[in-house]
Amino acid sequence: MSATTFTEPHRVVYYETDDTGHLTLAMLVNLLVLVSDDQGTDLGLDTAFVNHLGVGWVVTQYHVQVTRLPELGETVTLKTKATAYNRYFAYREYWVLDAQGQTLAYAEGIWVTMSYATRKIATIPTELMTPYGSEETTRLPRLPRPARLPQDADVRIKPYTVRYFDIDNNGHVNNAHYFDWLLDTLPADFLRQHQPTDIRIRFENEVQYGHQVTSEVVHQDHQTLHQIKVGTTIAAIATVDWTTN
Amino acid sequence: MSATTFTEPHRVVYYETDDTGHLTLAMLVNLLVLVSDDQGTDLGLDTAFVNHLGVGWVVTQYHVQVTRLPELGETVTLKTKATAYNRYFAYREYWVLDAQGQTLAYAEGIWVTMSYATRKIATIPTELMTPYGSEETTRLPRLPRPARLPQDADVRIKPYTVRYFDIDNNGHVNNAHYFDWLLDTLPADFLRQHQPTDIRIRFENEVQYGHQVTSEVVHQDHQTLHQIKVGTTIAAIATVDWTTN
Repeated sequence: MSATTFTEPHRVVYYETDDTGHLTLAMLVNLLVLVSDDQGTDLGLDTAFVNHLGVGWVVTQYHVQVTRLPELGETVTLKTKATAYNRYFAYREYWVLDAQGQTLAYAEGIWVTMSYATRKIATIPTELMTPYGSEETTRLPRLPRPARLPQDADVRIKPYTVRYFDIDNNGHVNNAHYFDWLLDTLPADFLRQHQPTDIRIRFENEVQYGHQVTSEVVHQDHQTLHQIKVGTTIAAIATVDWTTN
Repeated sequence: MSATTFTEPHRVVYYETDDTGHLTLAMLVNLLVLVSDDQGTDLGLDTAFVNHLGVGWVVTQYHVQVTRLPELGETVTLKTKATAYNRYFAYREYWVLDAQGQTLAYAEGIWVTMSYATRKIATIPTELMTPYGSEETTRLPRLPRPARLPQDADVRIKPYTVRYFDIDNNGHVNNAHYFDWLLDTLPADFLRQHQPTDIRIRFENEVQYGHQVTSEVVHQDHQTLHQIKVGTTIAAIATVDWTTN
């Protein structure tokens, strides 16, 4: 059996782009979650159904490879499938395609179900995976891990406070906001002149409304190493490879 | 002659809503600009054409009246017309309609053209208004002005730094971000338990990337009075009326 693919069109509009007119990484991640949700709803697995089982889906890791970020006004196709899963982890793949069907971005995500009762990772309910035609396997693909920041590096730090509007309908901070915190530490001119080609991110601990987070970055050649911390606790680590525009 | 109306559908998705599952005011304002842009493009007045005339459109004031904020998953109709204009100001109206054609929100906006050469308000080029069937008039409707903050009031203040991703494709801070700064000063529980019914905002001075802004609010009964400042300069003032959910 092979997992069902789901596609939907998406038009890139001005508030989804940066000042170069390209889709932001934060919005790209929003679109990955959107197409996942929409596939779930299409298969009768909407949020209400998932929550009814006492769990909620949470992403723990992404690996995103970008050929070209979509531009303002471009209509792209979002495509996904829930490729495989085991007892605790679901592996999902994504494609962003241009009008000619060329892949602009390819992403992989690791999802887990969190129990509302225990606030811990729960066994994935079978009824949440069966409709996807997802393969049950003991060996899931592993996503490349982001690198830890070197101890003696020159670290650039910016503080951010988690805002009310960073929280989405499931009561959690929308993961996409991490990308604004991560990348805003880099100089504007660098962001204008470079495009991310490979993004690895791992979410380790949840941040909450009102938390003060620090976004730390080490810049070495064509790579930036990031971490988001709340006090001394690491909330997320990420590595981004860049190319010159 | 009467101004041409333009409509388009919009589906409210999870990253456009707050933790109560309602469209945020920031996103509502994004949608007002989106439908304006789309009408312009539809009439051959896209951003490239506007910029070719040496000017760019900027909003100076909004008055928004909300009956009900659209909910997650709801498909609404965005409707607009460029009702009237004079030498320096264009008056535009907006409606957000539900599936039954009921008005969920009605908004009015005052737009001006800024000269790229002088960075000042320019006479609106006639060729930018003619295609809309917009009425040229000496007497434009006046939008209600937001109130100034009382001198002796109990002011709540929060600082925000303008981020790279707050700048949109025209090189300016997207006005919608003002609403995140304005409303994030209010307690989360207040925002969860109340809905804005009437929003009056006036943009007085531009904020720039890297600026530290302060968002100040005075809360009295069912009304909040806001200002955004850069140092001692007022960037925007706003008044919001609220109702209990």
